[in-house]
Amino acid sequence: MTSKLAVTAYAQLEELFGKVQALGDAEGMLHWDLATMMPKGGAEARAEQLAVLATVRHSMLAAPETGEWLAAADGDDTLDAWRAANLREMRRKWTHATALSENQVERLSRATSACEAAWRDARADDDFPTVLPKLETVLSLVRETAEAKAQALSLSPYDALLDAYEPDGRAQDIDRVFGELEAFLPDFLGQVLERQAQQAAIVAPEGPFPIDSQRALAVRLMGMLGFDFDHGRLDVSLHPFCGGVPDDVRITTRYDEGHFASALMGVLHETGHALYERGLPPAWRRQPVGEARGMALHESQSLLMEMQVCRSRDFVVLLAPMAKETFGGEGPAWESDNLYRFYTRVEPGFIRVDADEVTYPAHVILRYRLERALIAGDLEVRDLPAAWNEGMERLLGLKPPTDRLGCLQDIHWYDGAWGYFPTYTLGALAAAQIFEAARNGDAAIVSGIADGDFAPLLAWLRREIHGKASQLSTSELLVAATGSPLATDSFKRHLQQRYLG
Amino acid sequence: MTSKLAVTAYAQLEELFGKVQALGDAEGMLHWDLATMMPKGGAEARAEQLAVLATVRHSMLAAPETGEWLAAADGDDTLDAWRAANLREMRRKWTHATALSENQVERLSRATSACEAAWRDARADDDFPTVLPKLETVLSLVRETAEAKAQALSLSPYDALLDAYEPDGRAQDIDRVFGELEAFLPDFLGQVLERQAQQAAIVAPEGPFPIDSQRALAVRLMGMLGFDFDHGRLDVSLHPFCGGVPDDVRITTRYDEGHFASALMGVLHETGHALYERGLPPAWRRQPVGEARGMALHESQSLLMEMQVCRSRDFVVLLAPMAKETFGGEGPAWESDNLYRFYTRVEPGFIRVDADEVTYPAHVILRYRLERALIAGDLEVRDLPAAWNEGMERLLGLKPPTDRLGCLQDIHWYDGAWGYFPTYTLGALAAAQIFEAARNGDAAIVSGIADGDFAPLLAWLRREIHGKASQLSTSELLVAATGSPLATDSFKRHLQQRYLG
Repeated sequence: MTSKLAVTAYAQLEELFGKVQALGDAEGMLHWDLATMMPKGGAEARAEQLAVLATVRHSMLAAPETGEWLAAADGDDTLDAWRAANLREMRRKWTHATALSENQVERLSRATSACEAAWRDARADDDFPTVLPKLETVLSLVRETAEAKAQALSLSPYDALLDAYEPDGRAQDIDRVFGELEAFLPDFLGQVLERQAQQAAIVAPEGPFPIDSQRALAVRLMGMLGFDFDHGRLDVSLHPFCGGVPDDVRITTRYDEGHFASALMGVLHETGHALYERGLPPAWRRQPVGEARGMALHESQSLLMEMQVCRSRDFVVLLAPMAKETFGGEGPAWESDNLYRFYTRVEPGFIRVDADEVTYPAHVILRYRLERALIAGDLEVRDLPAAWNEGMERLLGLKPPTDRLGCLQDIHWYDGAWGYFPTYTLGALAAAQIFEAARNGDAAIVSGIADGDFAPLLAWLRREIHGKASQLSTSELLVAATGSPLATDSFKRHLQQRYLG
Repeated sequence: MTSKLAVTAYAQLEELFGKVQALGDAEGMLHWDLATMMPKGGAEARAEQLAVLATVRHSMLAAPETGEWLAAADGDDTLDAWRAANLREMRRKWTHATALSENQVERLSRATSACEAAWRDARADDDFPTVLPKLETVLSLVRETAEAKAQALSLSPYDALLDAYEPDGRAQDIDRVFGELEAFLPDFLGQVLERQAQQAAIVAPEGPFPIDSQRALAVRLMGMLGFDFDHGRLDVSLHPFCGGVPDDVRITTRYDEGHFASALMGVLHETGHALYERGLPPAWRRQPVGEARGMALHESQSLLMEMQVCRSRDFVVLLAPMAKETFGGEGPAWESDNLYRFYTRVEPGFIRVDADEVTYPAHVILRYRLERALIAGDLEVRDLPAAWNEGMERLLGLKPPTDRLGCLQDIHWYDGAWGYFPTYTLGALAAAQIFEAARNGDAAIVSGIADGDFAPLLAWLRREIHGKASQLSTSELLVAATGSPLATDSFKRHLQQRYLG
């Protein structure tokens, strides 16, 4: 009897979570539209749609039956491994949701919609003061969220926020790996810069690079990597991202007629995200266990494509004649050796998304420290620009001349994504570790890349990473795929080989 | 005490309907995306999103409190005219919703999503049999819907469907006006064709007309008519439509490089719809009384722009040099007199959306008769192609050589829109009646059109039609704006003047 009751409870949970996720998917699509298609004047109506969707989703999850079903299903030992994992992930979502009242969810949704819209203007006008009050409102609601979730999850407020993006991720572990990187990177950066200075100057390909041509090349490469345009699109947005749903993945980029490298590598990066989404197991669509494991692993898939694969010498040798042909390029700039050095040039800069992989962690460490201080109340939002600029000077020796090149550059905080930034660097470490394991696991992967055949790599990733969705924890998944939990070794080895090898 | 309770009930209803409409708006946006942006492989996920949204919306409306609040608010005599009308429209929506179970709503949503997707392929491949079973499923659910709503509304099944698109619209009234048109149009058409045959041949402008140029001209004209691109977009879809929400109106068209007239007039038509949406009173956003009055009046606004204004001689004189310049045209085809005759040419054809205003009612009468027979069970779906072709031969003397030029041409039935078609011709009658009243009401309207100044026309429409939203019934609104309820007189006068004048 108990078992039958429990099975029924589990089945009811599957139905509920399927509906909740369908509404979440709808929200995702409306977010995509907001960033790519929506005219400015649609912001208020869209904010209303998103707020109502968020509160309806929340009230469905937080209904009294959900807790009863979870309790009943907990005793059910007939669930197989996938279902048991699904139940675990359902409970996680339920705990996160019920920590907040419907009113809190609604206020947060409205505040982030308003702040994100204001950020778009503030960034364009380089005018932090206009967005400041809205960001203060967002932070105050985020702190309220963090406190409530900290109680519900028995975690620190920061860990409670982090847990929503990186399940089981903890600041303590981040501090440890970031500490190792801080011990390694400054010296290493110095050596790389010195070595680069001794090499022949890099010849930057000269534009203009018509946007249509950039897009055509990007689409061709996306197809080579395995992106299926019957199940996705490539569009333009102010801040590149991967959105949509696994069967309809929407990636975006932004083009600059004066440079083609940034948009192109941005597309290949988002393609890595898209392939992860697309590779999630179809049998578990719209169920918690069927989702990507977390943002660190998500970022590992984009960085594996962008940094490990597409900035490798093998790939650039493949790319060089294609790019030359697309843009009608001539001369030494288009030689593959020059292009390779162009694509792996290390140079401290202001903008995170344009940063090379050696200086990138500094951008993340800065944001991580600042957001911890802001959430802890040790830093006021009005003091953010100064703290940002000071941090940049200390970490990379650069003082941003404007907030546009400083604390206005990223959408995350304005859009309510606090506790998200560290996943970028965790992802970079995981990318190196996973790609090393993949190369060791199948020799056809590296030779395939040189031949423009990415099928062996994709097959390995589908089997070891994508297809496992959220069945395991990030750590378990990494141990199963690579033999060890997340560490900095592979990343350091990768940097040594690529930049000083 | 009663009054205070009642005010509270009304306020609760406003909050509820605001949320329900925000979800409806989200659905509208996802429908727009489906038709314009979504890759083929996204259909299943989208169907799930739409089905869940429809059922959630339904269950919110059908919750027991709604009926209690409606009953409590009914006794409230403190409501002003707008609030009282809002309450009336809330009750209408509630009655339509509660006539169906959540399960019926879900089945209908899924069946129409599946059928619409199959129709896209069937139309492309001219293959009615592949979509037949799905259309049979849709019809059987639509008949179930019609029966249930007929009970709830004390109407005939067909009127119950019609009422959802045209509140208070009744087949009896449609039969009367369609009868008057059938008595008038065949003879009239013969006279027009005879007269045209005696005139000098029309010189069709020769293409190709690059799509970018067509779009640029369309955008320029949209702006002249008053379309605000900060609150809307123009995109491409297989079947042109106006979607989105009043503050973010999304219109679509389809381009043909060989002809520019069809896409251009299609855009001007949808612009008329868009201006209506945009002119709805901001104070009543997301409330039932703030919506457009019904599809007949909606179509009156698109046809007023397209047929009454943009195919008038004054407008074509304005358009001719702009079109000539845009396409680099030369020769007699671009003379305004030739273009005017080109834009008002009458010629029986297979395709409704390409039909002139003289033959258009025959297309609608055919569909109206067929859908009534299908809903009544007097015609089987498998016999639809033959019945369609026979009807076309009887009404316009043309036998469609393929179903693509026959019963596969329109999305409506496949997408679940039954009881919708008659509103096109009701709209044509209303357009003539409204434009006649507008011209009589403000002399600046006609002179403005000749000068490319549409502000006087838009101001009149905003005041007399758009701004009234759903406060009055269609009939009351027409009487207030034009002095009489819907009749065929103005339409006949308009045709006489334009084609035999």
